[in-house]
Amino acid sequence: MSDLTTTTVTVSGMTCGHCVAAVTEELGRVVGVPTVDVDLPTGAVTIASEGVLDEAAVAAAVDEAGYEVVS
Amino acid sequence: MSDLTTTTVTVSGMTCGHCVAAVTEELGRVVGVPTVDVDLPTGAVTIASEGVLDEAAVAAAVDEAGYEVVS
Repeated sequence: MSDLTTTTVTVSGMTCGHCVAAVTEELGRVVGVPTVDVDLPTGAVTIASEGVLDEAAVAAAVDEAGYEVVS
Repeated sequence: MSDLTTTTVTVSGMTCGHCVAAVTEELGRVVGVPTVDVDLPTGAVTIASEGVLDEAAVAAAVDEAGYEVVS
């Protein structure tokens, strides 16, 4: 059995593959996050996590990459 | 006296600061190019060169960065 849960947030400001890579890399550093999937056209970022996702850490990571969680 | 000449080309596809950085970095590797200036909104890329600029090398560098010289 897996403990992985999935959370989707919307990130604004990503315009290209470099942006996707930057967000994916920063989110991949959040503790307990094994996978991140970004849909560039919509800004939807799907984050797998072991247990409950630390949403403040997610927001901080997205900010560090230079973007913003809008929902 | 300076031997620097300036050439401006238009590059399509750049959407953000990462794109600008990628194009600037690749063009900076062209032999004889000391400075590169990119205007993101217009795609205008101004390239200083010592002597005549190698336009084929410029096109190849922009392609390597993932973009295209359109004029």
